[in-house]
Amino acid sequence: MINDGFAELCAKERDHFPGWVAQISLDAPDAGVAEAERAVNQLGALGVQIYTNVAGKPIDRPQYLPFWKRMNELAKPIWLHPARDASMPDYFDERKSLYEIWWTFGWSYETATAMARLVFSKIMDNHPGLKIITHHFGGVVPMLEGRIGPGWDVLGSRTSDEDYVALRKSLKKRPLDYFKQDFYADTAVFGASPATKCGLEFFPVDKIVFASDCPFDPENGAMYPRETLRILKSLNLDNETADKIFFKNLERVTDRTLVK
Amino acid sequence: MINDGFAELCAKERDHFPGWVAQISLDAPDAGVAEAERAVNQLGALGVQIYTNVAGKPIDRPQYLPFWKRMNELAKPIWLHPARDASMPDYFDERKSLYEIWWTFGWSYETATAMARLVFSKIMDNHPGLKIITHHFGGVVPMLEGRIGPGWDVLGSRTSDEDYVALRKSLKKRPLDYFKQDFYADTAVFGASPATKCGLEFFPVDKIVFASDCPFDPENGAMYPRETLRILKSLNLDNETADKIFFKNLERVTDRTLVK
Repeated sequence: MINDGFAELCAKERDHFPGWVAQISLDAPDAGVAEAERAVNQLGALGVQIYTNVAGKPIDRPQYLPFWKRMNELAKPIWLHPARDASMPDYFDERKSLYEIWWTFGWSYETATAMARLVFSKIMDNHPGLKIITHHFGGVVPMLEGRIGPGWDVLGSRTSDEDYVALRKSLKKRPLDYFKQDFYADTAVFGASPATKCGLEFFPVDKIVFASDCPFDPENGAMYPRETLRILKSLNLDNETADKIFFKNLERVTDRTLVK
Repeated sequence: MINDGFAELCAKERDHFPGWVAQISLDAPDAGVAEAERAVNQLGALGVQIYTNVAGKPIDRPQYLPFWKRMNELAKPIWLHPARDASMPDYFDERKSLYEIWWTFGWSYETATAMARLVFSKIMDNHPGLKIITHHFGGVVPMLEGRIGPGWDVLGSRTSDEDYVALRKSLKKRPLDYFKQDFYADTAVFGASPATKCGLEFFPVDKIVFASDCPFDPENGAMYPRETLRILKSLNLDNETADKIFFKNLERVTDRTLVK
């Protein structure tokens, strides 16, 4: 129903909405894959959005493999949105997350964690055509480059009950290289300038797509687009870089002309 | 034993070690407070190090209040080190954290979480003299400025079973201001340049102290000091800023002359 509604709305208001992203649920994995196919092939969705967990389960479980396989074949992007609520505690000795920490820090932690799971489960190695667009500039990933880089170059040195050394050696490349080269990231960091610069420096320019998280700001919609544009403009990006971030990368990854 | 050993070693090798930080355990809170006092007043420690949780418990529990009260009176710094292991799961449906995610992302998540707990439990409001030095440039805090800022300006809007709106209004200042103004942060980000710039832009220069996390690098000690120095030097900081970061801030916060 949601996807039929999106298709209808965007067909009517093409000037405002040059494209739309399908919602699919992986709770019933087969139905989710079928809906992804229907939305992309029949309804014209640019791609699909999934969440960083499926009712609490990590997205690298075997039952979701048909989804990664089919999206790899379809070659359409997957928007990866964080999901977590207060029921995910922050401390071993607690039963829930307090003060909305699950949202403020947890969502961006979970974005990074989902990326790591896709890397170490070899879903990335086995599906080289996946186009995964992470929200919020990859969450905590740009800030933790040193931990993902030299830190995970010694994966296995902190673990005795799993053979992570063998796993690391069996990967096609260095863990950090997946995070830098194989994921896309959007610019929605709620109007924060240091984070924007950190994200821009971490991800290659061809992997960055504009987003603002409108309308989820204290002004109910006006603030985050305005602030995100203001920050990007303040950086004096050259025209080629700006065009890529504002629309060309998204056109390339969706294989669609979105801006006339 | 550890602290007596530190005191003895540093007295002998003053040219190499101009100061040392006491280890204290809050597992038996009274004994921890007594040892903090002994280390600072009798052994000459610069301050004390604690961890972001105490055997799985958050550091804002009532039994730890005497520690915050006494450190506020002593006016000596507290180094806050992250702690978490694989037993802290990343997903609701799992029993442990895989692939050392608990270390790579979890430690920096937990640093931010501990800071948030100190803010929202009002330990910061009630102990304005605390000098808390967070490790790894405050963990994920600089990257998540937008979530801590505008995101927590509407604390309570995502919660129905606690009155977080009343809590927010009863705080002495905006949540983001505590993170920016009331904590110190060190520069140990494992040789990552974007993260270093992000941290430098997030925290006021008076709150930043040099650290490298030596010897925990793939070269067993040489790499992180070398890379951290290289990055800081590449930024062409003015002399005043560099001096503050390299030693003057630490001298000020410890009230001690450390560099001759």
